[in-house]
Amino acid sequence: MNKTEPKTLSGFMELYPNEQVLFNSMKSIIESTYKSYGYFPLDTPVIEYSEVLLAKAGGETEKQIYRFEKGDNDLSLRFDLTVPLAKYVAKRQNELVFPFKRYQIGKVFRGERPQKGRFREFYQCDIDVIGDTELSLKYDSEIISIINDIFTKLNIGKFVIRINNRKILSGFFESLGLSDKVTDILRIVDKLEKIGEEEVKKELSNLGVNEKSQNSIISFMNIGGSAFEKLDVLKNYCNNETFLSGVSELESVLEDLVLRRIPSTNYDVDLSIARGLDYYTGSVFETKLIDYPNIGSVCSGGRYDNLAEYYTDAHLPGVGISIGLTRLFYQLVESNIIKVENASSSDIMIIPMCEDYKYIYEVNNMLLSYGINTNICYLEKGFKQKMRYADRMKNKYIVIIGEDEVNKKTIVLKNMIDGNQLELNINELESIKNMIGD
Amino acid sequence: MNKTEPKTLSGFMELYPNEQVLFNSMKSIIESTYKSYGYFPLDTPVIEYSEVLLAKAGGETEKQIYRFEKGDNDLSLRFDLTVPLAKYVAKRQNELVFPFKRYQIGKVFRGERPQKGRFREFYQCDIDVIGDTELSLKYDSEIISIINDIFTKLNIGKFVIRINNRKILSGFFESLGLSDKVTDILRIVDKLEKIGEEEVKKELSNLGVNEKSQNSIISFMNIGGSAFEKLDVLKNYCNNETFLSGVSELESVLEDLVLRRIPSTNYDVDLSIARGLDYYTGSVFETKLIDYPNIGSVCSGGRYDNLAEYYTDAHLPGVGISIGLTRLFYQLVESNIIKVENASSSDIMIIPMCEDYKYIYEVNNMLLSYGINTNICYLEKGFKQKMRYADRMKNKYIVIIGEDEVNKKTIVLKNMIDGNQLELNINELESIKNMIGD
Repeated sequence: MNKTEPKTLSGFMELYPNEQVLFNSMKSIIESTYKSYGYFPLDTPVIEYSEVLLAKAGGETEKQIYRFEKGDNDLSLRFDLTVPLAKYVAKRQNELVFPFKRYQIGKVFRGERPQKGRFREFYQCDIDVIGDTELSLKYDSEIISIINDIFTKLNIGKFVIRINNRKILSGFFESLGLSDKVTDILRIVDKLEKIGEEEVKKELSNLGVNEKSQNSIISFMNIGGSAFEKLDVLKNYCNNETFLSGVSELESVLEDLVLRRIPSTNYDVDLSIARGLDYYTGSVFETKLIDYPNIGSVCSGGRYDNLAEYYTDAHLPGVGISIGLTRLFYQLVESNIIKVENASSSDIMIIPMCEDYKYIYEVNNMLLSYGINTNICYLEKGFKQKMRYADRMKNKYIVIIGEDEVNKKTIVLKNMIDGNQLELNINELESIKNMIGD
Repeated sequence: MNKTEPKTLSGFMELYPNEQVLFNSMKSIIESTYKSYGYFPLDTPVIEYSEVLLAKAGGETEKQIYRFEKGDNDLSLRFDLTVPLAKYVAKRQNELVFPFKRYQIGKVFRGERPQKGRFREFYQCDIDVIGDTELSLKYDSEIISIINDIFTKLNIGKFVIRINNRKILSGFFESLGLSDKVTDILRIVDKLEKIGEEEVKKELSNLGVNEKSQNSIISFMNIGGSAFEKLDVLKNYCNNETFLSGVSELESVLEDLVLRRIPSTNYDVDLSIARGLDYYTGSVFETKLIDYPNIGSVCSGGRYDNLAEYYTDAHLPGVGISIGLTRLFYQLVESNIIKVENASSSDIMIIPMCEDYKYIYEVNNMLLSYGINTNICYLEKGFKQKMRYADRMKNKYIVIIGEDEVNKKTIVLKNMIDGNQLELNINELESIKNMIGD
């Protein structure tokens, strides 16, 4: 028979089993944290009408989208989870209960030029809360609290959630008489960290911003101190109304973070953050891993006034964030922050050294009932080969059952790392749960 | 601004939030059970090279597949999870540890004619174990044990896992001198339950099977009694070698189910099951909900000799099952077996009746630390409107915090169903975990 080469498309992540275990455990931490704050799961189709997905988009999105015809329909694969959310809420605005809190974790597709660390199919993990006409500022701090919980649980090192408010930026540029250039200036300022002060000044100059204003902008961006010290400076920095309204929002968010007991080392005010997207109108967030500055923002988002203006006249403000998990996982592995070698598919491997499967299954069923994931080695081979299987499967603990154990109603629990082993009575199996939790 | 209609494609499931909660809880039971038996998660791309996906396929698959070009590539969306598994294993056969146990839960795509209960995008929940050259029969009973665990935990009524062995069927037809027609006969016999005896006889006759053989086939299919009684009849039914080898495999599987203590009411032998697919070669399984005969098989699978013959010469036998979750969920809702009305996004809604958010967040953080999912009501409205929000969000329990509670360091826990409420000290919050578990 002619064989087809079993190849995978480039730019599409396909992991080894042990890598996938770690990827899924990160996904699971994100999902359980999203759920813990009372957000509904949402699952929208991968395929939508092209006109629906492209109602707002243009430029890069149109070029990158996977678009095709099937029957009479012009179809596309979703390129993010925000547009499907907007569609979903607009479609069901009379039936949903607002504020509508939802998370969605799923694959999105962008036919980008393939390059190292860029994927054409990747997971986004989004969480948003949408209000009907109005939405409490407490949700801004709730979203920050969720980011804080996730990156604490992920245990991938120190992180800082950098917070800004778009009204502060807009108001400040208004006060410089640069209102007509706000969007362009924000785009340039957003690159401050990436391209540096001189380059930003040059681009501002090209935009027609005079040198005095350039310097005002730079020194504004360089306001230093702790989050609350920056806030104090801002309170007397500028009399513009939009500016002061942004400062007041920022103050309210920061005060809430203190009440929520979020460690002050985990967040900061960063006036250079604007976020490229046009639709943010209030709080904006980025999250950085402190010890790995080369890894960009690992979690970004903010507040917007109109989620679904392309589908409905209803005023639907919201606040949310997105974690690009595929890229994040790739970067964590590349930077050696997480190690994939020791991921196993089970907590315990059971190695039968006799044929009494009635007893072996009894032990297995008890372990399962205690929530311990097991893998029985059914290989009809010698002890050495069975041990080699356990070793290759990266099991840290194995349970050995031979005729002696059957007769005594015991098992032998062996730690594969240090070689220590102990005998446990069948009534003591629950204690394994604590041991494997190390 | 011109508005785009926010519509979803027909044949694509998009659930309401409360429906999605139940859908996800079913998905989660399936996934955690798959994991508990030590199977690796697998996640392959939604998009693959068309030549890879279509290496084996033909006929219906080619017509239904979503296929398109992007750049120079001829691409398709996966139409099942078996072909991607075959590709994955063939590609990495030198690196994987065998037996390779994996599950995959993901969406697949088939452009079928849309009709009630048929979906063009749907979840498959697959689990398979693949051996290198050989694979213990114990995995056949392990797979049955997994089905048993899942349908017990799903709690959707009585079920029966119907078991057969393709060698028994092939051997029997060989003994009737119908070897050249085995595949066609199996296709007809597979429809016995659907179309009845007379129709099966008619189709067999059209195939050139004489009346005597037709009757032999029907009476063979009608062998009655318990699983082990049927087995006893089969042992002396026919001298064909393939037949006896199938009976011996079936016996070994059934004996293992007894050792595993799977309730005998949850499985049976059904000689009419052949499964349409060509590649099953040993055990075959179907699962039916006893009280809902109109719902077809909710979980099917079996053993095959060659997972990946279109990609490799390696001999890779396997056994596995698939649950079509999207269709199953649709049928369970349609048949009123599961009720979506009471699904909430959180265990508890916290209703603040004062402004002391320091205390409110303290309570919230404690509940979160006990694994209790919360939703804080931030509405700046009166008590009645807050209660109405809790009611619409289907929260069974709410926690009320007013100034009294802040001063006493307590909370009021209210059951929204029976109206009962009790006051708990902030140190007693963990006890809520047991209450909400009802």
